[in-house]
Amino acid sequence: MARDAEATKARLLAAATAEFAAYGIAGARIDRIAAAASANKNLLYLYFGNKEQLFATVLDTHISALLDAVPFDVTDLPGYAGRLYDFALGHPDLVRLARWYSLEQPGSLESTPLAFSSTKAKLDAITAAQSSGAVDDGLPAEHLLALLLSIAMTWTEGTPEASTADADAGTVAARRHAVVVAARRLVRPVG
Amino acid sequence: MARDAEATKARLLAAATAEFAAYGIAGARIDRIAAAASANKNLLYLYFGNKEQLFATVLDTHISALLDAVPFDVTDLPGYAGRLYDFALGHPDLVRLARWYSLEQPGSLESTPLAFSSTKAKLDAITAAQSSGAVDDGLPAEHLLALLLSIAMTWTEGTPEASTADADAGTVAARRHAVVVAARRLVRPVG
Repeated sequence: MARDAEATKARLLAAATAEFAAYGIAGARIDRIAAAASANKNLLYLYFGNKEQLFATVLDTHISALLDAVPFDVTDLPGYAGRLYDFALGHPDLVRLARWYSLEQPGSLESTPLAFSSTKAKLDAITAAQSSGAVDDGLPAEHLLALLLSIAMTWTEGTPEASTADADAGTVAARRHAVVVAARRLVRPVG
Repeated sequence: MARDAEATKARLLAAATAEFAAYGIAGARIDRIAAAASANKNLLYLYFGNKEQLFATVLDTHISALLDAVPFDVTDLPGYAGRLYDFALGHPDLVRLARWYSLEQPGSLESTPLAFSSTKAKLDAITAAQSSGAVDDGLPAEHLLALLLSIAMTWTEGTPEASTADADAGTVAARRHAVVVAARRLVRPVG
């Protein structure tokens, strides 16, 4: 019984990810999620609450996966930006979830507890690296981090600059190189 | 009569801008747009076609306004990035329209004829500036331009990094400074 419940929850989360990524929060339909997961709609409400709560659970799950897969590395911020780009490219659903969330919910991602504590640790590390001279200190850590993320996400799902669907391997490699170069130019200490 | 028609069209476009910015394409309701514009729904279809066509007209109108208000300046790309940020901050509806479009429509903004021809001219100018040594030539013009736009949009509506609603004048000025500095670091020639 417990194992069945876990399997059902996992199917519901996978179906919810696909539904929210495609249609956003307002456009998502609980009926479709339950049907795609071959599960009962009432079970979905029982496990995850309402649609907004389900979305929050889905987004948190994917952010946790990102934080695990792409550890922050203040000693190699350009490489970190490149790895963020890799992850975003491999996980277009997460990128779309985050973009829907930003458009549909007041406030920002930073307001989720998970993102907040993770960001705090990154900012502390950048500030320390600025003090030691390893990272340029001409801009506040908070702004450097936001710019790094923005650079890393330049060619990902849901940006006006580029669609990733039509990018061949050479294009992807060139874009990744551009992300790393731009990040390096941003953070390297200037004499 | 003709003047009435123009006034009605203008009211419909303003109402459509607000509706699409708030709810996106799928979420927008033609009924609400017509009601907000105190206009007949059939008139809306007559003037602008279906919902997708209305959205395209709204987006094109706002992109034209952006292109007029923020002329591209290849001799001052950091300043151009700063002015893009200013415009985006003053026109959150345009930013939201562009982000909805990227999420809801296959392909990218570049596929609209207006954006395409504008981008082509920018790329030619950047390539020439790279040849003359005024702009760093370590990355292709296409990638430099995409990164510049991405940097300029770091702290605008619908980004996970920051919400603009709560930003006071000092924060806005500091973010603008960061945009300009990041753009300068990206494009300045390195020895």
